[in-house]
Amino acid sequence: MYWHWHSDTQQWLPQNTWSAADRALNYGDGLFETLRFDAQQAIPLWHYHQQRLMAGLEALNFPAYSLAEIKAAMQSLPISESVNAGKLLISRGQGERGYAAPKEAKIELLWHGFTAPSWALERFPNGLEVAVSPIVLAKQPRLAGIKHLNRLEQVLARNLFPEHCQEVVMCDDAQSVIEGCMSNIVLFKDNQWLTPSLDNNGVNGVIRQWLLSQLPIIEAQVSLAELMQADTIIFCNTLNGIAPVARLGEKSFDPQHAGWQQALTLQQQLRAVFC
Amino acid sequence: MYWHWHSDTQQWLPQNTWSAADRALNYGDGLFETLRFDAQQAIPLWHYHQQRLMAGLEALNFPAYSLAEIKAAMQSLPISESVNAGKLLISRGQGERGYAAPKEAKIELLWHGFTAPSWALERFPNGLEVAVSPIVLAKQPRLAGIKHLNRLEQVLARNLFPEHCQEVVMCDDAQSVIEGCMSNIVLFKDNQWLTPSLDNNGVNGVIRQWLLSQLPIIEAQVSLAELMQADTIIFCNTLNGIAPVARLGEKSFDPQHAGWQQALTLQQQLRAVFC
Repeated sequence: MYWHWHSDTQQWLPQNTWSAADRALNYGDGLFETLRFDAQQAIPLWHYHQQRLMAGLEALNFPAYSLAEIKAAMQSLPISESVNAGKLLISRGQGERGYAAPKEAKIELLWHGFTAPSWALERFPNGLEVAVSPIVLAKQPRLAGIKHLNRLEQVLARNLFPEHCQEVVMCDDAQSVIEGCMSNIVLFKDNQWLTPSLDNNGVNGVIRQWLLSQLPIIEAQVSLAELMQADTIIFCNTLNGIAPVARLGEKSFDPQHAGWQQALTLQQQLRAVFC
Repeated sequence: MYWHWHSDTQQWLPQNTWSAADRALNYGDGLFETLRFDAQQAIPLWHYHQQRLMAGLEALNFPAYSLAEIKAAMQSLPISESVNAGKLLISRGQGERGYAAPKEAKIELLWHGFTAPSWALERFPNGLEVAVSPIVLAKQPRLAGIKHLNRLEQVLARNLFPEHCQEVVMCDDAQSVIEGCMSNIVLFKDNQWLTPSLDNNGVNGVIRQWLLSQLPIIEAQVSLAELMQADTIIFCNTLNGIAPVARLGEKSFDPQHAGWQQALTLQQQLRAVFC
């Protein structure tokens, strides 16, 4: 079930269709957020979503009223008992033919609630199987960090997952590690937590931001060679939570290592955030 | 007016909406073509569109039947008297949540016919005013040349056009010239026609391909410095045709130059193609 925000009446109405003239459909001219609720149907990490949305709205030069409209819509999300997560899509709205955005763009909001899968660690208690993706992420600083709707690199990467893998490592053309296909990467190496900086590409994930608030993590350029020498690697996103990597290509990781053990603790803490 | 192809009954039906679960809307997972008809309502340069579509379908790993379906749909395009151009959008179709394409994807086709504007040379008989875009094109060889739906770089560039400009020059991060925002670039320099190679980015335009068939044009890396030293620069696309540049930044170009004069002839020949 999909819902469409009606700004005139300030309500969400069920609607499984979308305008064919919409700029998200024609150009990917929009943003999205994948959100998770706690048991009280609040969104405990909303402030991180909002930070990223603000960065995205600014990068795409959306109308100034956009954030206020999104916040109003978030106040009355249609949530049922079985829904503990959802996707919010924000389009610049309808436009004439051509790339030029309408001067008076009327943004459109689409909501799709669903039941999140169980945390990745519950499904893969021994850790994730991971490979390096053959898809190389392009460098586009103007779009780096934000969660926009141009996702073909991720679609290509996802469709090339080796069958036994739950995620992949994606690098740029200098073999710098950027992120996973659908999650961020944090690694423990020489007693230090590190995560790739996202100046040129990648999505600044909400759980990545939460981890940065919990731990002393250095944001740095991380080469694929360095990643392969990590003691522990974790992937994180809103739906999967935090999960350590059991195997990356030929290399296996030690579940007894302090980094892995800390990852388990962090996942417990994250779980508590959503209770 | 938008039309939706019904593969079951093999007909186009009017439909101004689209599925909210569609992958083109959610990820830009699709392609498009901007087509122009001749007076007999044929598409004289269809073979170039088809070549690019084939490259795009392969790059995105669309189902094998896709091209046959598109060709069937092209046989019965809903065309009225006033329509001499149109946009065909090809989506991978509906999917579940997440980047993974459905194993049995059912592609969807959207058609939007319209009246093309007059050729650019008719609107700008003294040539185009052009600037260099501040938006730098990212390098993604996997998507280079094809006309996919991830067009945020073009949206950003279009929204930053200086007011007096009809087009911009877009470069990569090494200041190699790639293309315009919505057209390709061909230049005349030292008695030789050149066009930037599109190995890492850019759209391999139909008029670019037509020009390559008409003239000895070298496809090569072209630096912005080289472009600024060109004797004549032309921009070309399906709707605007071929138009020389009158002014690029501080530099003016000579309408009496042999390159400019040849551009006028080429536009006449192109016009004849669509008669």
